[in-house]
Amino acid sequence: MRSRTQEHVPAPGLLARARLLAAPTVDASVVRELERISGRSVEQGSSGTVPEEPFIYVGASLPDALRGGSLVWFHSVNAGTDALLAAGPWPSGALLTRTVGRMGERIAQYVLAWVLADCQSVPEFAAQHARAEWRRIPSELAAGRTAVIYGTGRIGSAVAALLRRCGIRTVGVGRGARTAVAGFDRVVGADDDAQPLAEARWVVTTLPLTPATDRFFGTDRFAGMDDATFINVGRGATVDLQALEAALHAGAVGRAVLDVLPEEPAAPGDRCWQLPRTVITSHSAGITADEDIVIDFAACWEAMAQGRVPGTAVDVGRGY
Amino acid sequence: MRSRTQEHVPAPGLLARARLLAAPTVDASVVRELERISGRSVEQGSSGTVPEEPFIYVGASLPDALRGGSLVWFHSVNAGTDALLAAGPWPSGALLTRTVGRMGERIAQYVLAWVLADCQSVPEFAAQHARAEWRRIPSELAAGRTAVIYGTGRIGSAVAALLRRCGIRTVGVGRGARTAVAGFDRVVGADDDAQPLAEARWVVTTLPLTPATDRFFGTDRFAGMDDATFINVGRGATVDLQALEAALHAGAVGRAVLDVLPEEPAAPGDRCWQLPRTVITSHSAGITADEDIVIDFAACWEAMAQGRVPGTAVDVGRGY
Repeated sequence: MRSRTQEHVPAPGLLARARLLAAPTVDASVVRELERISGRSVEQGSSGTVPEEPFIYVGASLPDALRGGSLVWFHSVNAGTDALLAAGPWPSGALLTRTVGRMGERIAQYVLAWVLADCQSVPEFAAQHARAEWRRIPSELAAGRTAVIYGTGRIGSAVAALLRRCGIRTVGVGRGARTAVAGFDRVVGADDDAQPLAEARWVVTTLPLTPATDRFFGTDRFAGMDDATFINVGRGATVDLQALEAALHAGAVGRAVLDVLPEEPAAPGDRCWQLPRTVITSHSAGITADEDIVIDFAACWEAMAQGRVPGTAVDVGRGY
Repeated sequence: MRSRTQEHVPAPGLLARARLLAAPTVDASVVRELERISGRSVEQGSSGTVPEEPFIYVGASLPDALRGGSLVWFHSVNAGTDALLAAGPWPSGALLTRTVGRMGERIAQYVLAWVLADCQSVPEFAAQHARAEWRRIPSELAAGRTAVIYGTGRIGSAVAALLRRCGIRTVGVGRGARTAVAGFDRVVGADDDAQPLAEARWVVTTLPLTPATDRFFGTDRFAGMDDATFINVGRGATVDLQALEAALHAGAVGRAVLDVLPEEPAAPGDRCWQLPRTVITSHSAGITADEDIVIDFAACWEAMAQGRVPGTAVDVGRGY
């Protein structure tokens, strides 16, 4: 059985002689790395003439002028390629790869940073310092306390593994109940989350938005928490913000850290900025960095040099 | 050979019938735990009458009225017992134990919290939130970067172990150069720190104050850093604050997190509050918490029930 994108892997000979073009928006430091990896010069910011030779393109979108040429491989600097594919028919035979980056690792680090910021009163100390105020604040030890993590996929599992490395007990809530998942001390189904929730010092959600998760965190679920810190790195619409506000006032939720909101970006006058004991971090937890573009490009290059389909190849027919 | 405090361990029979007294300053939650561990009621806030029966006392200082009684065991709620012993002759035969707590673990968590706060712009997001500002800030991955940690003793080693669990490379600087120490990828002597310093993303010091470490971090050492974040959880006088200020202005030090200062507490008008890109945390990294008192009391109780000398016993003749 052939891999679903096997037919799109360019032959090593084709790769070896292809020109390498990059969008004008690609940072100079990335360009230098692409040159190092590929062993050729990068052509950037050309006026839109179609190369006659086979070419590789690195960017976010494919300029119309280049759609007619002999595109061999397009490396997207983003994880999502829906907009790219919706912009027009994909050049026949051209491989499409994307930048997945170290998303799990980034989001796990974000969660741990805010878990520890909570324990060590990092925002409070920064504010005290600004007031030139010397006041001791005891810390709280994270080790031994419980984090309940919604979503036991790649992201949830990465979050759990990092928290557990710091001695935090990790309970996962997933569809496949009670199966062992890497990083988790225990996994329960969404219908069995009442007892773990009541014990949770932190509630972390990585849930995607589906009909089943729309406003998943509402009045009932928040009522089951006891002074927990609520951290959302999934999708904003999985949370009923009015219910969260009530839970913050009632004390069921002690603090909230929201990377995502039902509607983004939040305007300066938005009610969300007035939530008590809350920090909103502007959808920054999983930002793809320049180094991710380079790392994923290098992995594609190496795979293709060995005739393998890159792990980040997109099936352009299915769109992901 | 007898252990140095073997003679002071109360016989199990004596412990079993001793009354348990606690200073009025001991928190009610601690009192409840002491009762649970010892299986008897705690007498607190008594008017100073000397118990006729053997008694145990938990507190920071020993009331004069109790010095004459049959004190069996004094559990200090603090780590330092110098003031306690200086206040008068120690009752003959009374065991003295102290609360060491989870100091290494606490300081390690403090360091990791500020390392990650740096990577995730925790103070910046808190400030942005207060301004109701939506602005994305990319994170920096800590994994794979280098922390140079001065001091390879109990605290330094605990810091290194926790950072390493999060993928950070750890280089220790200690007196015993180039020997393997738990938690460190590598250990060098203080004369060989130039190359690790130049590579350091974080420089963490846990150094005690001795004639050799007075202003150890001065102009020369700071000049060897390249945009490092400097974190001091040791002693304030090991740092020349004027040299640090110059290094912050020059960029050799990118940020500073100071738990300790040469003179504490800092007055509101102190120059230290004006250091650029610095947070001062009011000597809070290693605060002994109520739970530490309970944990160490329980460990003493268990040791003595087995006829062992508690690990936190103080030799009252030597004073530590």
